[in-house]
Amino acid sequence: MSFDKLLQQLSFIQEIDKLKYIKRKTRLFNSDRHENDAEHSWHLALMAMVLAEHANEPVDVSKVVKMLLIHDIVEIDSGDVFLFDTLLNHDDATAEHKAALRIFGLLPEEQSKEFLTIWEEFEARETPESRFAHAIDRFEPVLQNVSNQGGSWKEFNVDYEKVIKKVGVIDKGSNHIWDFAKTMIDDSLEKGYIQKPELPQE
Amino acid sequence: MSFDKLLQQLSFIQEIDKLKYIKRKTRLFNSDRHENDAEHSWHLALMAMVLAEHANEPVDVSKVVKMLLIHDIVEIDSGDVFLFDTLLNHDDATAEHKAALRIFGLLPEEQSKEFLTIWEEFEARETPESRFAHAIDRFEPVLQNVSNQGGSWKEFNVDYEKVIKKVGVIDKGSNHIWDFAKTMIDDSLEKGYIQKPELPQE
Ligand SMILES: [Ca+2]
Repeated sequence: MSFDKLLQQLSFIQEIDKLKYIKRKTRLFNSDRHENDAEHSWHLALMAMVLAEHANEPVDVSKVVKMLLIHDIVEIDSGDVFLFDTLLNHDDATAEHKAALRIFGLLPEEQSKEFLTIWEEFEARETPESRFAHAIDRFEPVLQNVSNQGGSWKEFNVDYEKVIKKVGVIDKGSNHIWDFAKTMIDDSLEKGYIQKPELPQE
Repeated sequence: MSFDKLLQQLSFIQEIDKLKYIKRKTRLFNSDRHENDAEHSWHLALMAMVLAEHANEPVDVSKVVKMLLIHDIVEIDSGDVFLFDTLLNHDDATAEHKAALRIFGLLPEEQSKEFLTIWEEFEARETPESRFAHAIDRFEPVLQNVSNQGGSWKEFNVDYEKVIKKVGVIDKGSNHIWDFAKTMIDDSLEKGYIQKPELPQE
């Protein structure tokens, strides 16, 4: 009996262990401890299972779960990109695609294609599943930041307009969750967790 | 518009954040860092997606993934039970059931039942999905321990017969993965990562 295929699959399984070392800017609920990408992905998958009924369009929950479980694996090579970092956002798409090819490429060919396809669908945001997956990905840090009196918003002096613009992506996946997130963001502005936008100079 | 249902779902989502603090006995690959239950659950879900073809019987992969994502949530209340701890294994079933009722009980009733049912199916090991999920759960520490020159086997002086008995559960979910795991275990015995069973006294 040959273990060749299993061994190839295990090389991927061992490689993705590294996701547990990729630290995000956000911290756990009511905590100083930064979240890592593996536990983040786990949490998002659970959120998708629980919140699927609030998606704007009917979604295949299992597909959303798979997307969220693999969506950050590329960061093993390209690192975590802070949502509010304006400089990095663009170059990053190329680096992430290269990472996807390398890491999913460790798998046997058919699986490699399958994972790459799900990841590309997530990135393209053109299907109900990918829009809802992005909504969940943007919603988790809102909950965390509010529980941490501003969290990464406060730490990096992020202003209101930027939060609305970036987090507003939730609306494309779920109006209901966005309506709720918006109340949390407005409340955070009042509490000083989020900076007031600067008034234009006269 | 009412956020009541969403708020109830979010109470569960916030509660399960605690899984990120539950430390397992095993450590990450080639590492001193203990794994936590949230990143462990993430890794198992990915393993199931990748290794499903090796299951003894055809499995609904999405169901296996869901099982693995929620299987350890009870440990928020009952703590991690070390596989080779003979004293605790039994009492624990009651504590874990109580935990499942409390934590899944935070969800709206229908979801609460749905999660409890999946968790009970996992625990009962009577379906192809639950047998395969258990196989994956037992296989991950084998890979980790071998990468760590014995890891928790060596640290807790676990002997060969116990490893074979406990890890042998893999066979019920996947003969192929078990055949491979057995070669790793036998090799670990040779290398002294696993204790030789004591010879009976004359
Ligand atoms: Ca466990």
